[in-house]
Amino acid sequence: MKTVALVLEYDGTGFVGWQRQATGRSVQGVVEAALATLLKQEVRLTASGRTDAGVHALGMVAAFCSPLDLPLTAFREGLNRLLPEEVAVRRALEVPPSFHPRFAARGKWYRYQLRPGPCRSPLLRNRTWQLRGPLDLAAMQSAAADFVGRHDFSAFRSAGCDAATTEREIFSTAVQASEDLVLFDVRGGGFLRNMVRIMTGTLVEVGLGRRSAGDVWHLLRDGHRPAAGLTAPPQGLFLMEVWYGEEDKLQCLPGGL
Amino acid sequence: MKTVALVLEYDGTGFVGWQRQATGRSVQGVVEAALATLLKQEVRLTASGRTDAGVHALGMVAAFCSPLDLPLTAFREGLNRLLPEEVAVRRALEVPPSFHPRFAARGKWYRYQLRPGPCRSPLLRNRTWQLRGPLDLAAMQSAAADFVGRHDFSAFRSAGCDAATTEREIFSTAVQASEDLVLFDVRGGGFLRNMVRIMTGTLVEVGLGRRSAGDVWHLLRDGHRPAAGLTAPPQGLFLMEVWYGEEDKLQCLPGGL
Repeated sequence: MKTVALVLEYDGTGFVGWQRQATGRSVQGVVEAALATLLKQEVRLTASGRTDAGVHALGMVAAFCSPLDLPLTAFREGLNRLLPEEVAVRRALEVPPSFHPRFAARGKWYRYQLRPGPCRSPLLRNRTWQLRGPLDLAAMQSAAADFVGRHDFSAFRSAGCDAATTEREIFSTAVQASEDLVLFDVRGGGFLRNMVRIMTGTLVEVGLGRRSAGDVWHLLRDGHRPAAGLTAPPQGLFLMEVWYGEEDKLQCLPGGL
Repeated sequence: MKTVALVLEYDGTGFVGWQRQATGRSVQGVVEAALATLLKQEVRLTASGRTDAGVHALGMVAAFCSPLDLPLTAFREGLNRLLPEEVAVRRALEVPPSFHPRFAARGKWYRYQLRPGPCRSPLLRNRTWQLRGPLDLAAMQSAAADFVGRHDFSAFRSAGCDAATTEREIFSTAVQASEDLVLFDVRGGGFLRNMVRIMTGTLVEVGLGRRSAGDVWHLLRDGHRPAAGLTAPPQGLFLMEVWYGEEDKLQCLPGGL
């Protein structure tokens, strides 16, 4: 027996999301199917969290208990041969049996890719949110800075969110231009359902001049979901990394998206 | 009547290539179909060249003679509503009736995206050539520099190439690392069939240590196709730009791919 953690990259376009569901093709489902083929028996993955349909990942972490004591490269390379082209194992590493990808996580990094401009981009169509107007970066940076710290994020979770508590800590945010994209990066200890997408939707309304940068502060204070921005569409969102402490080896560097 | 040039971006993944063919879905075919809907009659596009199946473009230029005198924004926005999501018009501009996208072109810029490393990338799967080994950038840069100038490129064209002459001029080449990619950029006055892909295949063999950087010089001198490298796969190749002189307005800046 061996407890193995996988760092996974996937293109979320054709999936119902990370989590296995009654119908539809899930990332969890295809990875578990590949594991069943490799190990000749069913194993169940435990993940660091979920991603919605259409959301991508460069560093999703999921763990399982292997009945076979294969070398780690056999997990990585064997699974990469069995998985569909939209999913790959970037790393496989042995972890203590007590390791839990969700409870042990110290933080997560999400990136949202925005593309302002009049023309949609065929090459980036499933990787960005295309926005007509230009974005006021300074206003977005100011609003994004207000997210940092420990706050009640009630205004930034979807109606379907069933988390028991709504207080979360954001470690850092950044809004920056990169070629013809605008990137919103957010690192935090934990996230409510759709939280990053609602934060992004609110920042975009600030960037388009439809609300003031000071709104974020009011939204965090008042906790009123309908007052916050729209939920940004899934295809611009990437789970970049989950980390587990200073000495863990799960970090993976992002590549050109 | 109005002669209109279009600057097109497309994801070549699902196409048989630019050119309309007896069977299969071509980029030219879908743009001509959208034009026929917009203009309520058939028009034929003349392009700056062809791209193979799976090859992408950020700046393909194609022109047509419009029977309707619509404003240029109507061409761009009307076509972008009618075209499939893999194709978009970045610019539409009026050109003199004598303008020919191929004969008037002064040069073209192609980019090839290589991805060295042990793990394939789901998010970049249709945008890169995944290579197992590390690449020796200095050797590739040295070999790429030998392409610059006017040479006989007989060793760098496919068997099916029917060009009457094999001399072409390369203005510049560059090989650079960018995050976890290696980019090969080449600008030249004209290109033979599969020329950039065979140049890339040869450079990759240099980068992997399977041939010496000095080989390019010998290949240009001897003109022997079987002595050159393999043809790199299409999905890493992008037609970035076609230019028409110092004052033209067809240039389009590349975005994050």
